Amino acid sequence: MKNTLYLLLLLTLGCQTKTETKPTFGIVIHGGAGTILKENMTAEKEAAYRQVLSEAIQVGYEILKEGGSSQDAVEKTIHVMENSPLFNAGKGAVLTADATIELDASFMDGATLDAGAISGVRTVKHPISAAIKVMEASPHVMLSGAGADSFAKEQDLEIVEPEYFFTERRINSLKRVQEANAQKKLSLSEIDKAFLQQQRYGTVGCVALDLSGNLAAGTSTGGMTNKKWNRIGDAPIIGAGTYANNATCAISATGWGEFFIRSVVAHDISALMEYKGMSIEAAAKEVIHNKVAKLGGDGGVVGIDRHGNPMMEMNTAGMYRAHMDAEGNLAVKIYREE
Amino acid sequence: MKNTLYLLLLLTLGCQTKTETKPTFGIVIHGGAGTILKENMTAEKEAAYRQVLSEAIQVGYEILKEGGSSQDAVEKTIHVMENSPLFNAGKGAVLTADATIELDASFMDGATLDAGAISGVRTVKHPISAAIKVMEASPHVMLSGAGADSFAKEQDLEIVEPEYFFTERRINSLKRVQEANAQKKLSLSEIDKAFLQQQRYGTVGCVALDLSGNLAAGTSTGGMTNKKWNRIGDAPIIGAGTYANNATCAISATGWGEFFIRSVVAHDISALMEYKGMSIEAAAKEVIHNKVAKLGGDGGVVGIDRHGNPMMEMNTAGMYRAHMDAEGNLAVKIYREE
Repeated sequence: MKNTLYLLLLLTLGCQTKTETKPTFGIVIHGGAGTILKENMTAEKEAAYRQVLSEAIQVGYEILKEGGSSQDAVEKTIHVMENSPLFNAGKGAVLTADATIELDASFMDGATLDAGAISGVRTVKHPISAAIKVMEASPHVMLSGAGADSFAKEQDLEIVEPEYFFTERRINSLKRVQEANAQKKLSLSEIDKAFLQQQRYGTVGCVALDLSGNLAAGTSTGGMTNKKWNRIGDAPIIGAGTYANNATCAISATGWGEFFIRSVVAHDISALMEYKGMSIEAAAKEVIHNKVAKLGGDGGVVGIDRHGNPMMEMNTAGMYRAHMDAEGNLAVKIYREE
Repeated sequence: MKNTLYLLLLLTLGCQTKTETKPTFGIVIHGGAGTILKENMTAEKEAAYRQVLSEAIQVGYEILKEGGSSQDAVEKTIHVMENSPLFNAGKGAVLTADATIELDASFMDGATLDAGAISGVRTVKHPISAAIKVMEASPHVMLSGAGADSFAKEQDLEIVEPEYFFTERRINSLKRVQEANAQKKLSLSEIDKAFLQQQRYGTVGCVALDLSGNLAAGTSTGGMTNKKWNRIGDAPIIGAGTYANNATCAISATGWGEFFIRSVVAHDISALMEYKGMSIEAAAKEVIHNKVAKLGGDGGVVGIDRHGNPMMEMNTAGMYRAHMDAEGNLAVKIYREE
């Protein structure tokens, strides 16, 4: 009897060790959440989104498969989405009330808990790379406005004319929004609230676990159409839009930024895992469907935990998203029920 | 026996109800943490700090005692410290590398989880009031730079010339720092790291519980001397420098902002209370002495929980701080061992 128990103990320990140490990797991305309904989509548009999501995640997947870092995978995957005018990040970002483009991004390294963020840059081709550079080459975590642009230039990041980011689609969106607001004669706060309820998609994000067991998370966005007063949303806020910690998970959020800041969404998911032992999925459901929803906010999050379990959760009609595991299985999704 | 048990149960329930509902209030403030050593202090300087801390907390105390809101107490208490050139907030704030002054502040309401923040304003006399106005009168949580200044002006907040904030003491500090850096020929990151280790005091903050059971937290700062690239520290970041939630506590932080952002300090203290049932003191000790310290950061936090228990915790040599309870007992402290 004693020997049998001992054997069982050994077997149990053996299994646990295997679960804990088996090297695996994975990657999850999003291209924004919001009122994305099948009836408003054309087959071409849907195919275009699925195509860019697939291309982007494949870039990160190949890096991770070759033993590259989660940081590198997150950065290079986000570059693909920043380059695509389909998403509200980098080229094709939305316009502010003054018809300028102000870009926000952040990155966090789960191994060191180091982080970098920029808000309101106007000339940096890849805002996610500027966020990473703030982490690596400055003593700061967050830079903003013209200062962040100067820093990126000093660091030899790719600088473009502000015009590079502009697309006809976004210029038209701003016109439509401003004309509608003028007709309705709404106050500043009413305008933004009414309008926000249809406009919250496009932010991009990526989380990854690499073969060394390191987690990383990054988020990049143009914020919201017609934004004013150098508004900062959740995307560049460590703890709100982005968080990574090797002890728990890596998270990137997209949605109504104000509610995501107030709910400290990304860190709260990690805290529920660390302090209550929740799974990444249970923690994300609690934060999105209970906490954020109770305040009246909506949006989505993607994440990956330290064992490689992916998570894609939203309380909107849809979220552009994709996931790839170590075996190369790819899932690309748009609508909530899919 | 059964009757005795029933009686005991009733008594227990009665006591619990009393503990939960007895209206009380309290207020805690800080004026920054850092290398504050008795040997570097004069009796006059020490008396001046204690005097302003006492005056400031008394303002909030009177509001709370009369049944006023924790929001009003936090705002008016911080005004006193923003007006005092002793602290690095409002008048007497530190200078940036370009010899400008850029002010950050944030506020959070524990009842609604609503929040407001501004970063990099140059003309708003009371940055804490601008943060509150963002919460109340805009659809946003965080505004920055010139946009935040414009918003404050539109909202009829008190606007001053940038010169209002300048003091000889801070102009001299910037000169000393820049001369020292030039002599040492340090790289940009080395400069800031070396220098940061002596410079992290002055941020002000206040947390309060009012007679209605509502918690509020606010923080206001000029950031760090010689800061560059429109750097944003933890003070205007909801979850890092400021957090309030009626379910747990209200927190305001001060210290090496970069580490406080990475540790999501204010929200993490709340999460440890909410998810692990820790006391406010145990949670703050865990975050400051374990989590922040492990990363190499230092600073302090003040807080108050929903029962009115105060907390003032630091891993620096000192923190300007004070606490007042509902009975009017006042404690003003500077050094860690006091």
